[in-house]
Amino acid sequence: MPRTAAALVIGNEILSGKIVDTNTTFLARGLFELGIELRRVVVCPDEVETIGSELSQLREGYDLVFTSGGVGPTHDDVTIEGVAASFGRPVVQSEAVANMIRHYYGDRVTDAHLRMANMPEGAEMIRSSEAPWPTVVIENVFVLPGVPEIFELKFTDLRKRLDDGAEFHSHAVFTMSGEGEIASLLQRIAEAFPGVMVGSYVKWKVDDYRTKVTFDGKDEEAVRKAADTLVGELAPNVFVRRE
Amino acid sequence: MPRTAAALVIGNEILSGKIVDTNTTFLARGLFELGIELRRVVVCPDEVETIGSELSQLREGYDLVFTSGGVGPTHDDVTIEGVAASFGRPVVQSEAVANMIRHYYGDRVTDAHLRMANMPEGAEMIRSSEAPWPTVVIENVFVLPGVPEIFELKFTDLRKRLDDGAEFHSHAVFTMSGEGEIASLLQRIAEAFPGVMVGSYVKWKVDDYRTKVTFDGKDEEAVRKAADTLVGELAPNVFVRRE
Repeated sequence: MPRTAAALVIGNEILSGKIVDTNTTFLARGLFELGIELRRVVVCPDEVETIGSELSQLREGYDLVFTSGGVGPTHDDVTIEGVAASFGRPVVQSEAVANMIRHYYGDRVTDAHLRMANMPEGAEMIRSSEAPWPTVVIENVFVLPGVPEIFELKFTDLRKRLDDGAEFHSHAVFTMSGEGEIASLLQRIAEAFPGVMVGSYVKWKVDDYRTKVTFDGKDEEAVRKAADTLVGELAPNVFVRRE
Repeated sequence: MPRTAAALVIGNEILSGKIVDTNTTFLARGLFELGIELRRVVVCPDEVETIGSELSQLREGYDLVFTSGGVGPTHDDVTIEGVAASFGRPVVQSEAVANMIRHYYGDRVTDAHLRMANMPEGAEMIRSSEAPWPTVVIENVFVLPGVPEIFELKFTDLRKRLDDGAEFHSHAVFTMSGEGEIASLLQRIAEAFPGVMVGSYVKWKVDDYRTKVTFDGKDEEAVRKAADTLVGELAPNVFVRRE
Protein backbone atom coordinates (compact mmCIF):
# COMPACT_ATOMS: atom_id res chain seq x y z
CA MET A 1 0.00 0.00 0.00
CA PRO A 2 1.40 3.42 -0.88
CA ARG A 3 1.70 5.94 1.92
CA THR A 4 -1.15 8.46 2.00
CA ALA A 5 -1.02 12.19 2.53
CA ALA A 6 -3.35 15.13 3.08
CA ALA A 7 -2.86 18.88 2.95
CA LEU A 8 -4.39 21.68 5.01
CA VAL A 9 -4.15 25.03 3.23
CA ILE A 10 -4.81 27.90 5.61
CA GLY A 11 -5.77 31.41 4.61
CA ASN A 12 -8.68 33.79 4.13
CA GLU A 13 -6.76 35.26 1.19
CA ILE A 14 -7.19 32.01 -0.73
CA LEU A 15 -10.88 31.64 0.14
CA SER A 16 -11.54 35.20 -1.05
CA GLY A 17 -9.57 34.65 -4.26
CA LYS A 18 -7.01 37.37 -3.48
CA ILE A 19 -4.15 34.90 -3.66
CA VAL A 20 -3.96 31.93 -6.02
CA ASP A 21 -2.77 28.83 -4.15
CA THR A 22 0.11 27.29 -6.09
CA ASN A 23 1.47 25.28 -3.15
CA THR A 24 -1.09 22.50 -3.50
CA THR A 25 -0.03 21.74 -7.07
CA PHE A 26 3.65 21.86 -6.14
CA LEU A 27 3.01 19.50 -3.22
CA ALA A 28 0.79 17.19 -5.32
CA ARG A 29 3.46 16.79 -7.99
CA GLY A 30 6.23 16.27 -5.47
CA LEU A 31 4.29 13.62 -3.54
CA PHE A 32 3.28 11.89 -6.77
CA GLU A 33 6.94 11.65 -7.81
CA LEU A 34 7.70 10.08 -4.43
CA GLY A 35 4.91 7.52 -4.83
CA ILE A 36 2.91 9.05 -1.96
CA GLU A 37 -0.81 9.28 -2.62
CA LEU A 38 -2.27 12.73 -1.85
CA ARG A 39 -5.87 11.83 -0.93
CA ARG A 40 -7.41 14.99 0.44
CA VAL A 41 -6.84 18.75 0.48
CA VAL A 42 -8.80 21.11 2.73
CA VAL A 43 -8.67 24.90 2.49
CA CYS A 44 -9.81 26.66 5.67
CA PRO A 45 -9.83 30.17 7.14
CA ASP A 46 -7.36 31.67 9.64
CA GLU A 47 -9.17 30.47 12.79
CA VAL A 48 -7.48 28.55 15.59
CA GLU A 49 -10.44 26.32 16.33
CA THR A 50 -11.15 25.49 12.68
CA ILE A 51 -7.49 24.71 11.96
CA GLY A 52 -7.36 22.51 15.06
CA SER A 53 -10.42 20.46 14.19
CA GLU A 54 -9.54 20.11 10.49
CA LEU A 55 -6.02 19.01 11.40
CA SER A 56 -7.26 16.47 13.94
CA GLN A 57 -9.33 14.79 11.23
CA LEU A 58 -6.46 14.78 8.72
CA ARG A 59 -3.67 13.56 10.95
CA GLU A 60 -5.72 10.59 12.10
CA GLY A 61 -6.78 9.64 8.59
CA TYR A 62 -3.54 9.92 6.62
CA ASP A 63 0.11 8.91 7.03
CA LEU A 64 1.48 12.40 6.36
CA VAL A 65 -0.09 15.86 6.67
CA PHE A 66 1.30 19.09 5.29
CA THR A 67 0.00 22.50 6.29
CA SER A 68 0.53 25.60 4.16
CA GLY A 69 0.22 29.19 5.39
CA GLY A 70 -0.51 31.17 8.52
CA VAL A 71 2.97 31.15 10.07
CA GLY A 72 4.03 34.81 9.67
CA PRO A 73 4.10 37.60 12.23
CA THR A 74 0.62 39.14 11.89
CA HIS A 75 -2.62 38.76 13.87
CA ASP A 76 -4.11 36.39 11.30
CA ASP A 77 -1.15 33.98 11.41
CA VAL A 78 -2.60 31.43 13.81
CA THR A 79 -1.52 28.09 12.36
CA ILE A 80 0.88 27.27 15.20
CA GLU A 81 -1.90 27.88 17.73
CA GLY A 82 -4.24 25.65 15.66
CA VAL A 83 -1.67 22.84 15.42
CA ALA A 84 -1.01 23.07 19.16
CA ALA A 85 -4.76 22.92 19.84
CA SER A 86 -5.10 19.79 17.71
CA PHE A 87 -2.36 18.07 19.74
CA GLY A 88 -3.57 19.50 23.07
CA ARG A 89 -0.16 21.03 23.74
CA PRO A 90 0.78 24.57 24.81
CA VAL A 91 2.56 27.00 22.48
CA VAL A 92 6.13 27.71 23.60
CA GLN A 93 8.85 29.95 22.20
CA SER A 94 11.94 28.26 20.79
CA GLU A 95 14.90 30.12 22.25
CA ALA A 96 17.10 29.00 19.35
CA VAL A 97 14.72 30.37 16.72
CA ALA A 98 14.09 33.55 18.74
CA ASN A 99 17.84 34.15 18.72
CA MET A 100 18.00 33.63 14.94
CA ILE A 101 15.19 36.20 14.55
CA ARG A 102 16.92 38.71 16.86
CA HIS A 103 20.14 38.26 14.95
CA TYR A 104 18.38 38.73 11.59
CA TYR A 105 16.32 41.85 12.49
CA GLY A 106 18.77 43.43 14.94
CA ASP A 107 17.42 46.63 16.51
CA ARG A 108 14.26 46.50 14.38
CA VAL A 109 13.01 43.27 16.00
CA THR A 110 9.42 43.39 17.33
CA ASP A 111 7.26 41.07 19.41
CA ALA A 112 5.44 40.30 16.17
CA HIS A 113 8.66 39.03 14.56
CA LEU A 114 9.30 36.87 17.61
CA ARG A 115 5.90 35.17 17.16
CA MET A 116 7.64 33.27 14.36
CA ALA A 117 9.68 31.47 17.05
CA ASN A 118 6.50 29.95 18.53
CA MET A 119 5.80 26.24 18.20
CA PRO A 120 3.77 23.52 19.87
CA GLU A 121 5.65 22.13 22.89
CA GLY A 122 7.77 19.13 21.95
CA ALA A 123 7.74 19.83 18.21
CA GLU A 124 10.79 18.84 16.21
CA MET A 125 12.64 21.44 14.16
CA ILE A 126 14.19 20.42 10.87
CA ARG A 127 16.79 22.58 9.22
CA SER A 128 19.46 22.15 6.60
CA SER A 129 21.96 24.25 4.72
CA GLU A 130 19.39 24.77 1.91
CA ALA A 131 16.57 25.73 4.30
CA PRO A 132 18.20 27.36 7.32
CA TRP A 133 14.93 28.60 8.90
CA PRO A 134 13.59 25.55 10.68
CA THR A 135 10.48 23.63 9.64
CA VAL A 136 8.22 22.65 12.51
CA VAL A 137 7.33 18.94 12.52
CA ILE A 138 5.14 17.28 15.09
CA GLU A 139 4.41 13.56 14.77
CA ASN A 140 3.15 13.18 11.16
CA VAL A 141 2.42 16.91 10.59
CA PHE A 142 4.77 19.17 8.63
CA VAL A 143 4.08 22.90 9.10
CA LEU A 144 5.07 24.86 5.99
CA PRO A 145 4.72 28.57 5.19
CA GLY A 146 2.35 29.98 2.58
CA VAL A 147 4.86 32.09 0.63
CA PRO A 148 5.41 29.87 -2.43
CA GLU A 149 9.17 30.42 -2.70
CA ILE A 150 9.74 29.27 0.90
CA PHE A 151 7.11 26.50 0.71
CA GLU A 152 8.87 25.07 -2.34
CA LEU A 153 12.34 25.41 -0.83
CA LYS A 154 11.26 23.67 2.37
CA PHE A 155 9.29 20.89 0.68
CA THR A 156 12.17 20.19 -1.71
CA ASP A 157 14.41 19.90 1.32
CA LEU A 158 11.97 17.49 3.03
CA ARG A 159 11.83 15.19 0.01
CA LYS A 160 15.03 13.39 0.98
CA ARG A 161 13.43 12.54 4.31
CA LEU A 162 10.20 11.32 2.68
CA ASP A 163 11.73 9.28 -0.15
CA ASP A 164 11.46 5.51 0.29
CA GLY A 165 12.40 4.74 -3.30
CA ALA A 166 8.85 3.77 -4.36
CA GLU A 167 8.19 5.83 -7.46
CA PHE A 168 5.21 5.96 -9.78
CA HIS A 169 5.70 5.07 -13.43
CA SER A 170 3.73 6.98 -16.04
CA HIS A 171 2.78 6.54 -19.67
CA ALA A 172 0.54 8.75 -21.79
CA VAL A 173 -1.31 8.06 -25.05
CA PHE A 174 -2.68 10.87 -27.22
CA THR A 175 -5.60 10.26 -29.53
CA MET A 176 -8.02 12.08 -31.80
CA SER A 177 -10.87 10.04 -30.27
CA GLY A 178 -13.27 11.89 -27.97
CA GLU A 179 -13.58 10.76 -24.35
CA GLY A 180 -17.07 9.41 -24.91
CA GLU A 181 -15.94 7.19 -27.80
CA ILE A 182 -13.22 5.44 -25.78
CA ALA A 183 -14.90 5.50 -22.36
CA SER A 184 -15.93 1.83 -22.33
CA LEU A 185 -12.51 0.77 -23.64
CA LEU A 186 -10.79 2.73 -20.86
CA GLN A 187 -13.06 1.17 -18.29
CA ARG A 188 -12.12 -2.33 -19.53
CA ILE A 189 -8.42 -1.44 -19.30
CA ALA A 190 -8.85 0.02 -15.80
CA GLU A 191 -10.56 -3.21 -14.71
CA ALA A 192 -7.91 -5.42 -16.33
CA PHE A 193 -5.06 -3.56 -14.58
CA PRO A 194 -6.34 -2.78 -11.08
CA GLY A 195 -3.02 -1.36 -9.82
CA VAL A 196 -2.87 1.16 -12.67
CA MET A 197 -4.63 4.52 -12.45
CA VAL A 198 -6.20 5.39 -15.80
CA GLY A 199 -7.02 9.06 -16.38
CA SER A 200 -8.31 10.90 -19.44
CA TYR A 201 -8.05 14.60 -20.22
CA VAL A 202 -9.97 16.32 -22.96
CA LYS A 203 -8.27 19.11 -24.82
CA TRP A 204 -10.82 21.88 -25.01
CA LYS A 205 -9.35 23.50 -28.11
CA VAL A 206 -8.47 20.59 -30.37
CA ASP A 207 -5.33 20.88 -32.46
CA ASP A 208 -2.94 17.93 -32.59
CA TYR A 209 -4.97 15.66 -30.33
CA ARG A 210 -8.38 15.48 -28.64
CA THR A 211 -7.88 13.25 -25.58
CA LYS A 212 -4.80 12.47 -23.52
CA VAL A 213 -4.99 9.18 -21.62
CA THR A 214 -2.59 8.68 -18.69
CA PHE A 215 -1.50 5.46 -17.00
CA ASP A 216 0.22 5.64 -13.60
CA GLY A 217 1.25 3.06 -11.06
CA LYS A 218 4.09 1.50 -9.13
CA ASP A 219 4.30 -1.66 -11.23
CA GLU A 220 6.30 -0.55 -14.26
CA GLU A 221 5.35 -3.54 -16.40
CA ALA A 222 1.62 -3.27 -15.63
CA VAL A 223 1.64 0.43 -16.52
CA ARG A 224 3.36 -0.27 -19.84
CA LYS A 225 1.01 -3.15 -20.68
CA ALA A 226 -2.07 -1.04 -19.91
CA ALA A 227 -0.82 1.66 -22.29
CA ASP A 228 0.06 -1.04 -24.89
CA THR A 229 -3.52 -2.32 -24.68
CA LEU A 230 -4.98 1.08 -25.51
CA VAL A 231 -2.54 1.66 -28.39
CA GLY A 232 -3.40 -1.81 -29.77
CA GLU A 233 -7.12 -1.04 -29.73
CA LEU A 234 -7.01 2.43 -31.26
CA ALA A 235 -7.49 2.66 -35.02
CA PRO A 236 -4.33 4.00 -36.73
CA ASN A 237 -6.13 7.13 -37.94
CA VAL A 238 -7.00 8.24 -34.37
CA PHE A 239 -3.73 7.27 -32.65
CA VAL A 240 -1.52 10.37 -32.39
CA ARG A 241 1.48 9.54 -30.21
CA ARG A 242 2.74 7.99 -27.02
CA GLU A 243 4.95 9.40 -24.30
CA MET B 1 -24.77 37.45 8.57
CA PRO B 2 -23.37 36.87 5.09
CA ARG B 3 -24.34 33.67 3.34
CA THR B 4 -21.67 30.97 3.55
CA ALA B 5 -20.43 28.64 0.85
CA ALA B 6 -18.18 25.61 0.44
CA ALA B 7 -16.66 23.90 -2.59
CA LEU B 8 -15.97 20.25 -3.32
CA VAL B 9 -13.35 19.82 -6.03
CA ILE B 10 -13.34 16.28 -7.40
CA GLY B 11 -10.50 14.69 -9.31
CA ASN B 12 -7.48 12.42 -9.02
CA GLU B 13 -5.84 14.58 -11.68
CA ILE B 14 -5.73 17.51 -9.23
CA LEU B 15 -4.46 15.40 -6.33
CA SER B 16 -1.66 14.04 -8.51
CA GLY B 17 -0.75 17.52 -9.76
CA LYS B 18 -1.48 16.66 -13.42
CA ILE B 19 -4.05 19.42 -13.68
CA VAL B 20 -3.87 22.78 -11.93
CA ASP B 21 -7.24 23.65 -10.37
CA THR B 22 -8.19 27.17 -11.45
CA ASN B 23 -11.91 26.78 -10.72
CA THR B 24 -11.50 27.36 -6.98
CA THR B 25 -9.94 30.78 -7.51
CA PHE B 26 -12.59 31.73 -10.07
CA LEU B 27 -15.35 30.64 -7.69
CA ALA B 28 -13.69 32.34 -4.69
CA ARG B 29 -13.48 35.68 -6.51
CA GLY B 30 -17.02 35.44 -7.83
CA LEU B 31 -18.50 34.60 -4.43
CA PHE B 32 -16.47 37.36 -2.78
CA GLU B 33 -17.88 39.89 -5.25
CA LEU B 34 -21.36 38.67 -4.37
CA GLY B 35 -20.70 39.08 -0.63
CA ILE B 36 -20.90 35.31 -0.08
CA GLU B 37 -18.27 33.96 2.29
CA LEU B 38 -16.43 30.89 0.93
CA ARG B 39 -15.48 29.11 4.16
CA ARG B 40 -14.15 25.73 3.12
CA VAL B 41 -12.78 23.93 0.06
CA VAL B 42 -12.18 20.18 -0.05
CA VAL B 43 -10.38 18.35 -2.85
CA CYS B 44 -11.17 14.64 -3.01
CA PRO B 45 -10.58 11.69 -5.37
CA ASP B 46 -13.03 10.24 -7.93
CA GLU B 47 -14.75 7.82 -5.52
CA VAL B 48 -18.52 7.63 -5.08
CA GLU B 49 -18.40 6.97 -1.35
CA THR B 50 -15.83 9.69 -0.62
CA ILE B 51 -17.73 12.27 -2.67
CA GLY B 52 -20.95 11.31 -0.93
CA SER B 53 -19.57 11.64 2.59
CA GLU B 54 -17.64 14.86 1.88
CA LEU B 55 -20.73 16.40 0.30
CA SER B 56 -22.96 15.38 3.20
CA GLN B 57 -20.68 17.29 5.59
CA LEU B 58 -20.54 20.36 3.37
CA ARG B 59 -24.20 20.70 2.50
CA GLU B 60 -25.20 20.54 6.15
CA GLY B 61 -22.58 23.07 7.25
CA TYR B 62 -22.90 25.81 4.59
CA ASP B 63 -25.66 27.71 2.81
CA LEU B 64 -24.39 26.93 -0.70
CA VAL B 65 -22.16 24.15 -2.01
CA PHE B 66 -20.50 24.03 -5.43
CA THR B 67 -18.92 20.89 -6.84
CA SER B 68 -16.34 20.97 -9.61
CA GLY B 69 -15.39 18.04 -11.83
CA GLY B 70 -16.27 14.42 -12.47
CA VAL B 71 -19.29 14.91 -14.72
CA GLY B 72 -17.95 13.72 -18.09
CA PRO B 73 -18.50 10.42 -19.91
CA THR B 74 -15.61 8.27 -18.59
CA HIS B 75 -15.37 5.59 -15.90
CA ASP B 76 -13.83 8.02 -13.39
CA ASP B 77 -16.65 10.56 -13.74
CA VAL B 78 -18.68 9.56 -10.70
CA THR B 79 -19.77 12.88 -9.21
CA ILE B 80 -23.47 12.39 -10.03
CA GLU B 81 -23.40 9.00 -8.28
CA GLY B 82 -21.68 10.61 -5.27
CA VAL B 83 -24.21 13.46 -5.09
CA ALA B 84 -27.09 10.98 -5.38
CA ALA B 85 -25.52 8.86 -2.58
CA SER B 86 -25.29 11.91 -0.32
CA PHE B 87 -29.00 12.64 -0.81
CA GLY B 88 -30.01 8.95 -0.68
CA ARG B 89 -31.65 9.20 -4.10
CA PRO B 90 -31.32 6.97 -7.16
CA VAL B 91 -29.59 8.12 -10.35
CA VAL B 92 -32.03 8.58 -13.23
CA GLN B 93 -31.57 9.58 -16.84
CA SER B 94 -33.06 12.90 -17.92
CA GLU B 95 -34.90 12.21 -21.15
CA ALA B 96 -34.60 15.87 -22.17
CA VAL B 97 -30.82 15.93 -21.73
CA ALA B 98 -30.43 12.51 -23.36
CA ASN B 99 -32.23 13.90 -26.40
CA MET B 100 -29.93 16.92 -26.50
CA ILE B 101 -26.93 14.57 -26.42
CA ARG B 102 -28.37 12.34 -29.19
CA HIS B 103 -29.02 15.42 -31.28
CA TYR B 104 -25.50 16.75 -30.69
CA TYR B 105 -23.57 13.52 -31.39
CA GLY B 106 -25.90 12.03 -34.00
CA ASP B 107 -24.79 8.58 -35.20
CA ARG B 108 -21.63 8.76 -33.10
CA VAL B 109 -23.52 8.76 -29.79
CA THR B 110 -22.39 6.13 -27.26
CA ASP B 111 -23.67 4.90 -23.90
CA ALA B 112 -20.76 6.80 -22.38
CA HIS B 113 -22.02 10.07 -23.88
CA LEU B 114 -25.46 9.35 -22.50
CA ARG B 115 -24.04 9.03 -18.97
CA MET B 116 -23.92 12.83 -19.09
CA ALA B 117 -27.75 12.82 -18.98
CA ASN B 118 -27.68 11.13 -15.56
CA MET B 119 -28.75 13.04 -12.47
CA PRO B 120 -30.04 12.40 -8.96
CA GLU B 121 -33.79 11.85 -8.98
CA GLY B 122 -35.69 15.08 -8.41
CA ALA B 123 -32.75 17.36 -9.24
CA GLU B 124 -33.50 20.69 -10.84
CA MET B 125 -31.93 21.59 -14.18
CA ILE B 126 -30.95 25.18 -14.84
CA ARG B 127 -30.27 26.37 -18.34
CA SER B 128 -30.13 29.68 -20.13
CA SER B 129 -29.27 31.02 -23.54
CA GLU B 130 -25.65 31.60 -22.38
CA ALA B 131 -25.29 28.11 -20.88
CA PRO B 132 -27.58 25.84 -22.88
CA TRP B 133 -26.29 22.56 -21.34
CA PRO B 134 -28.17 22.30 -18.08
CA THR B 135 -26.58 22.66 -14.65
CA VAL B 136 -27.77 20.12 -12.10
CA VAL B 137 -28.96 21.70 -8.85
CA ILE B 138 -30.30 19.76 -5.90
CA GLU B 139 -31.34 21.66 -2.78
CA ASN B 140 -28.29 23.86 -1.96
CA VAL B 141 -25.82 21.93 -4.15
CA PHE B 142 -24.72 23.17 -7.60
CA VAL B 143 -22.98 20.52 -9.73
CA LEU B 144 -20.46 22.13 -12.09
CA PRO B 145 -18.04 20.56 -14.56
CA GLY B 146 -14.25 20.57 -14.15
CA VAL B 147 -13.34 21.97 -17.57
CA PRO B 148 -12.51 25.59 -16.65
CA GLU B 149 -14.16 27.21 -19.69
CA ILE B 150 -17.50 25.53 -18.94
CA PHE B 151 -17.17 25.94 -15.17
CA GLU B 152 -16.67 29.69 -15.66
CA LEU B 153 -19.52 29.99 -18.17
CA LYS B 154 -21.93 28.16 -15.88
CA PHE B 155 -20.92 29.97 -12.70
CA THR B 156 -21.17 33.35 -14.43
CA ASP B 157 -24.65 32.36 -15.50
CA LEU B 158 -25.59 31.32 -11.94
CA ARG B 159 -24.44 34.65 -10.48
CA LYS B 160 -27.72 36.36 -11.32
CA ARG B 161 -29.53 33.74 -9.30
CA LEU B 162 -27.16 34.09 -6.33
CA ASP B 163 -26.96 37.87 -6.22
CA ASP B 164 -28.81 39.46 -3.31
CA GLY B 165 -27.18 42.88 -3.76
CA ALA B 166 -24.92 42.54 -0.69
CA GLU B 167 -21.46 43.37 -1.99
CA PHE B 168 -18.14 43.61 -0.21
CA HIS B 169 -16.26 46.91 -0.27
CA SER B 170 -12.48 46.82 -0.49
CA HIS B 171 -9.62 49.22 0.17
CA ALA B 172 -5.90 48.53 -0.03
CA VAL B 173 -2.93 50.37 1.46
CA PHE B 174 0.62 49.79 0.23
CA THR B 175 3.59 50.43 2.49
CA MET B 176 7.35 49.98 2.68
CA SER B 177 6.92 48.70 6.26
CA GLY B 178 7.48 44.99 6.86
CA GLU B 179 4.61 42.88 8.20
CA GLY B 180 6.35 42.44 11.56
CA GLU B 181 6.70 46.20 12.06
CA ILE B 182 2.99 46.93 11.59
CA ALA B 183 1.56 43.71 13.03
CA SER B 184 0.44 45.18 16.36
CA LEU B 185 -1.03 48.24 14.60
CA LEU B 186 -3.02 45.98 12.26
CA GLN B 187 -4.26 43.97 15.19
CA ARG B 188 -5.53 47.15 16.90
CA ILE B 189 -7.33 48.20 13.70
CA ALA B 190 -8.87 44.72 13.28
CA GLU B 191 -10.16 44.90 16.85
CA ALA B 192 -11.51 48.44 16.42
CA PHE B 193 -13.46 47.51 13.26
CA PRO B 194 -14.84 44.01 13.93
CA GLY B 195 -16.88 43.87 10.71
CA VAL B 196 -13.83 44.60 8.56
CA MET B 197 -11.49 41.82 7.45
CA VAL B 198 -7.89 43.02 7.61
CA GLY B 199 -5.35 41.11 5.53
CA SER B 200 -1.66 41.69 4.86
CA TYR B 201 0.42 40.37 1.98
CA VAL B 202 4.18 40.53 1.86
CA LYS B 203 5.81 41.12 -1.48
CA TRP B 204 8.60 38.61 -1.68
CA LYS B 205 10.72 40.61 -4.12
CA VAL B 206 10.45 44.18 -2.90
CA ASP B 207 10.31 46.93 -5.48
CA ASP B 208 7.74 49.69 -5.07
CA TYR B 209 6.24 48.37 -1.84
CA ARG B 210 6.88 45.73 0.81
CA THR B 211 3.45 44.99 2.33
CA LYS B 212 -0.06 45.34 0.92
CA VAL B 213 -2.77 45.68 3.55
CA THR B 214 -6.36 44.94 2.51
CA PHE B 215 -9.63 45.97 4.17
CA ASP B 216 -12.85 44.23 3.15
CA GLY B 217 -16.36 44.31 4.49
CA LYS B 218 -20.00 45.05 3.79
CA ASP B 219 -20.09 48.35 5.70
CA GLU B 220 -18.58 50.79 3.23
CA GLU B 221 -17.92 53.48 5.82
CA ALA B 222 -16.26 51.12 8.32
CA VAL B 223 -13.97 49.77 5.59
CA ARG B 224 -12.93 53.29 4.58
CA LYS B 225 -12.35 54.36 8.18
CA ALA B 226 -10.22 51.27 8.92
CA ALA B 227 -8.01 52.10 5.92
CA ASP B 228 -7.92 55.79 6.97
CA THR B 229 -6.67 54.71 10.40
CA LEU B 230 -3.75 52.81 8.93
CA VAL B 231 -2.82 55.65 6.55
CA GLY B 232 -2.97 58.11 9.46
CA GLU B 233 -0.59 55.99 11.54
CA LEU B 234 2.01 55.25 8.87
CA ALA B 235 5.00 57.60 8.70
CA PRO B 236 5.05 59.50 5.37
CA ASN B 237 8.32 57.86 4.30
CA VAL B 238 6.81 54.35 4.45
CA PHE B 239 3.35 55.12 3.01
CA VAL B 240 3.37 54.27 -0.70
CA ARG B 241 -0.19 54.52 -2.01
CA ARG B 242 -3.83 53.67 -1.50
CA GLU B 243 -6.31 51.97 -3.81
